[in-house]
Amino acid sequence: MKRPLILVTNDDGILAPGIKALIEVAKTIGEVVVVAPDSPQSAKGHALTILEPIYLRKVDPFGGIEAYECSGTPVDCVKIAKSIVFKDREAALCVSGINHGSNASINIIYSGTVSAAMEASLEGIPSIGFSLLDYSQDADFEPAKDFVAQLIRYVLENGMEHGHLWNVNIPKLPAAEIKGFKICRQAEARWAEEFVAGEDVYGQENYTLTGEFKLEDQGEDTDIWALDHQYISIVPSMHDLTNYDSIPRLKEIESLNRKM
Amino acid sequence: MKRPLILVTNDDGILAPGIKALIEVAKTIGEVVVVAPDSPQSAKGHALTILEPIYLRKVDPFGGIEAYECSGTPVDCVKIAKSIVFKDREAALCVSGINHGSNASINIIYSGTVSAAMEASLEGIPSIGFSLLDYSQDADFEPAKDFVAQLIRYVLENGMEHGHLWNVNIPKLPAAEIKGFKICRQAEARWAEEFVAGEDVYGQENYTLTGEFKLEDQGEDTDIWALDHQYISIVPSMHDLTNYDSIPRLKEIESLNRKM
Repeated sequence: MKRPLILVTNDDGILAPGIKALIEVAKTIGEVVVVAPDSPQSAKGHALTILEPIYLRKVDPFGGIEAYECSGTPVDCVKIAKSIVFKDREAALCVSGINHGSNASINIIYSGTVSAAMEASLEGIPSIGFSLLDYSQDADFEPAKDFVAQLIRYVLENGMEHGHLWNVNIPKLPAAEIKGFKICRQAEARWAEEFVAGEDVYGQENYTLTGEFKLEDQGEDTDIWALDHQYISIVPSMHDLTNYDSIPRLKEIESLNRKM
Repeated sequence: MKRPLILVTNDDGILAPGIKALIEVAKTIGEVVVVAPDSPQSAKGHALTILEPIYLRKVDPFGGIEAYECSGTPVDCVKIAKSIVFKDREAALCVSGINHGSNASINIIYSGTVSAAMEASLEGIPSIGFSLLDYSQDADFEPAKDFVAQLIRYVLENGMEHGHLWNVNIPKLPAAEIKGFKICRQAEARWAEEFVAGEDVYGQENYTLTGEFKLEDQGEDTDIWALDHQYISIVPSMHDLTNYDSIPRLKEIESLNRKM
């Protein structure tokens, strides 16, 4: 039987430990093709490269796994995987990550990891973004692996609605202390920014972003709640940003026409 | 009476004709502060600049209007406006654009214009992204101006739900041919990509993205339908990407825990 084709990408770059862990899991389940950025692309959101060319190079850092590094953003990687690498092959699944650091709550908006998964979902490929709540370069991805494998198998067996994706975050805990999976909504939160003023070598003033995560949601059905209570959070997500609830109320704007 | 403070930004860069038109409208209604990218930042999505510093320079291209150019992305512009430029001043509204080209349908995901508006909405600032369906540098923004003014006044008078924003697209038509406003949902669509292979001056192969917009939605309640029928589309949008409908069905995944 043909093994399912799994596209693996990330935003931390093709040599990040997190993608290596994800490849190790995915290759036990399917045929893996890696297309990932040649440099770290964190916080790139859904950026894509237009007007200028990008580069794609076949590389072999994963012991014979088909792999390419791309000079573009995570979203570029998914687009070029589909158009240039796969051509007539059809991916059964796209997995992105495992990100070094949380993409829970509002971080989904800024995350290159989840944006890559969303781009794949737009192409009709079921897609999961995985993140571990550990920013360090030497984060331990071992405890996450069994859980990641379970979710990959679940999606390959059960499918996913067209255009949807999952944003999965994994607490930084030994496997035995992880209580399991929680299906959640995205917690309301924001980053309280502070820019640190500095100056460059030419004496010109500049600003570097720092920030503090501000949870504005006490719900017990959120991803932040789940992670705080030793669960892996799964937020089923989508690319339709329409606020349907407010449409009826705003219909009055259509009558502004007549006042002109 | 104090005039409302209006933050104006965009993604085409501070010298684009579209932002000039938006400033001309906004300054008739409120006190305007401009913080916009110093270079074109189209398709940057919700990218932000981390780990490296950004620059902010006071400039005066708008005849005495308080204005700053920023070396970062549209999202950076909103963050630095709030933290460094405004400090204790409170913006009553953020308007982004007027973008040269459509941000209707799935383009909202890639758009720097709408991402800037979304970032402002995360900060609790009512926010509107405006786009004109004309990609050219010498697009005519005059017909759009009265409509833009009407929407700005409506939001200043009626407010907007916390964390929400509007994605407004304006057809390329003389004012008399625009039929008015339609409150819409985001049309389902995707970009069918093609990468044009080329080579750089060193003979290295590369790829430049081109694409064709594929509408996958025949609904008459979408932004694309409205624009095709000579209306200005308003999609009330939000940053919560949770697909609430699928949560009950996916709850079965929580029982995977016990199989381990």
